[in-house]
Amino acid sequence: MSNYPMVPGHEVVGEVLEVGSDVTKYKVGDVVGVGALVGSCRQCNPCQSNIEQYCNKRIWSYNDVYTDGKPTQGGFSGAMVVDQKFVVKIPEGLAAEQAAPLLCAGLTVYSPLRHFNLNKPGLKGAILGLGGVGHMGVKVAKAMGHHVTVISSSNKKKVEAMDDLGADAYLVSTDSDHMLQAMDRLDYILDTVPVAHPLEPYLSLLKVDGRLIIMGVIGEPLKFVSPMIMLGRKSISGTFVGSIEETGEMLEFCKEKGISSQIEVVKMDYINKAFERLEKNDVRYRFVVDVAGSKLDA
Amino acid sequence: MSNYPMVPGHEVVGEVLEVGSDVTKYKVGDVVGVGALVGSCRQCNPCQSNIEQYCNKRIWSYNDVYTDGKPTQGGFSGAMVVDQKFVVKIPEGLAAEQAAPLLCAGLTVYSPLRHFNLNKPGLKGAILGLGGVGHMGVKVAKAMGHHVTVISSSNKKKVEAMDDLGADAYLVSTDSDHMLQAMDRLDYILDTVPVAHPLEPYLSLLKVDGRLIIMGVIGEPLKFVSPMIMLGRKSISGTFVGSIEETGEMLEFCKEKGISSQIEVVKMDYINKAFERLEKNDVRYRFVVDVAGSKLDA
Repeated sequence: MSNYPMVPGHEVVGEVLEVGSDVTKYKVGDVVGVGALVGSCRQCNPCQSNIEQYCNKRIWSYNDVYTDGKPTQGGFSGAMVVDQKFVVKIPEGLAAEQAAPLLCAGLTVYSPLRHFNLNKPGLKGAILGLGGVGHMGVKVAKAMGHHVTVISSSNKKKVEAMDDLGADAYLVSTDSDHMLQAMDRLDYILDTVPVAHPLEPYLSLLKVDGRLIIMGVIGEPLKFVSPMIMLGRKSISGTFVGSIEETGEMLEFCKEKGISSQIEVVKMDYINKAFERLEKNDVRYRFVVDVAGSKLDA
Repeated sequence: MSNYPMVPGHEVVGEVLEVGSDVTKYKVGDVVGVGALVGSCRQCNPCQSNIEQYCNKRIWSYNDVYTDGKPTQGGFSGAMVVDQKFVVKIPEGLAAEQAAPLLCAGLTVYSPLRHFNLNKPGLKGAILGLGGVGHMGVKVAKAMGHHVTVISSSNKKKVEAMDDLGADAYLVSTDSDHMLQAMDRLDYILDTVPVAHPLEPYLSLLKVDGRLIIMGVIGEPLKFVSPMIMLGRKSISGTFVGSIEETGEMLEFCKEKGISSQIEVVKMDYINKAFERLEKNDVRYRFVVDVAGSKLDA
């Protein structure tokens, strides 16, 4: 449910303009980031375990209600006020516009690989769906030393997957011969598809103990028959962004590994055009809005 | 597909009558057991990792074809010939009729708890469905020191779950108030239901990082919407019996903890009556057929 007026933006990078008297972590002039969340209860088990993204009282960066009862507003504004707990430092050497898409898309792929102990070299992984999240999946998985297959419904994205993003293999899900040959090979699949799709063809690509990790919010039911997971001790897991702690770690990882997002920087006056192009899937892979450069009132 | 003539029986305990010249693990007179499998390829990754139950060339104890091209026949016979690799020693102090149901039902619940690192005290688990596998689930989980809830569609099995099997709680899945109160509490659910059923009510009972473990072979698709697993980093896993190594470990565990199966011992001439009663779900919880006592020809 969208509540208006709404200012979206949940992959936000900016400079600290002002700090409150209790702020200890940041000072004026620091370059910092904010992701999908700006609040949580701080008392539940997930909060106490530093996985506040799983707090049932999490507060979204926009279109939510803050502790003061006021609507939260996101990053497409001249300035935003955020509790320091939900702010991360952007490491020096990582450009602001490069860092922005890492704060949700990058984190979304990094967190499960890290959490499920898949951040070790030599694994065979696949990225299902090549969009904003999927393209970061290829880059992060490659940087972890994995053999990375991109799975897509057609051959259309083969060149960009292999040549631009550096994937090791490309698998067309509608090619049943190819899918059959690829069975039983993968340690994991990052499933970034945001609409309902069959799970069984992908479950069959997994090795014993393989994991299908779902990261698309899909309202329609996903389906599978139980032998598909039983005869191989496979798991279907869901994860949702990542913690603030993981965000910092992920940014360092991306800086060290020289991971850059593939982006197109636009000004605020381009935003309607950008939305039109998004609807046509005409962006590789994220628009980054240069809010400061658009000279809005702060 | 059933091929006749067929001798079923995949929870088999008996005495070694004869050993081949290469047999090193057993001698005449040993009391041993055989479970669901009598063969595997021994070369694939699962076989090399001692999880031969996930070998794609596994050979079932009956209604399958052995390496010599002949049909396999199970334990409801006077004698069976089995490769020593697929034979386990029944620990002294564990009665033969008690040990039998452990070889599939007991193993099926023990293996996932062990593999997924859930065999530690203090966890909160639930058993969904109280039949042959489910009743072993309660006993094994209790012996591991868990708080165990039995989930069932009606109140019918409450007394047996709590009083006879020692469950700590009983949850009626059709009681929506009760289900709502029980949300976000469980570390795992052993789902032993062998027919299609909704997953979402049970996923909602799991804590963050909770795991729904499916052990029923179900041909109809199981369904869930992705936010149900994403907002809690939950997993849906499937497992299938357990390894020979785990079988030995499980038998020792059951002996140490004094776990007994709840069984009804019958002779072979009762078998048709037993099937009739099985169809009516009129057994608590397993018939054990005393083949030797039935004086068949060996």
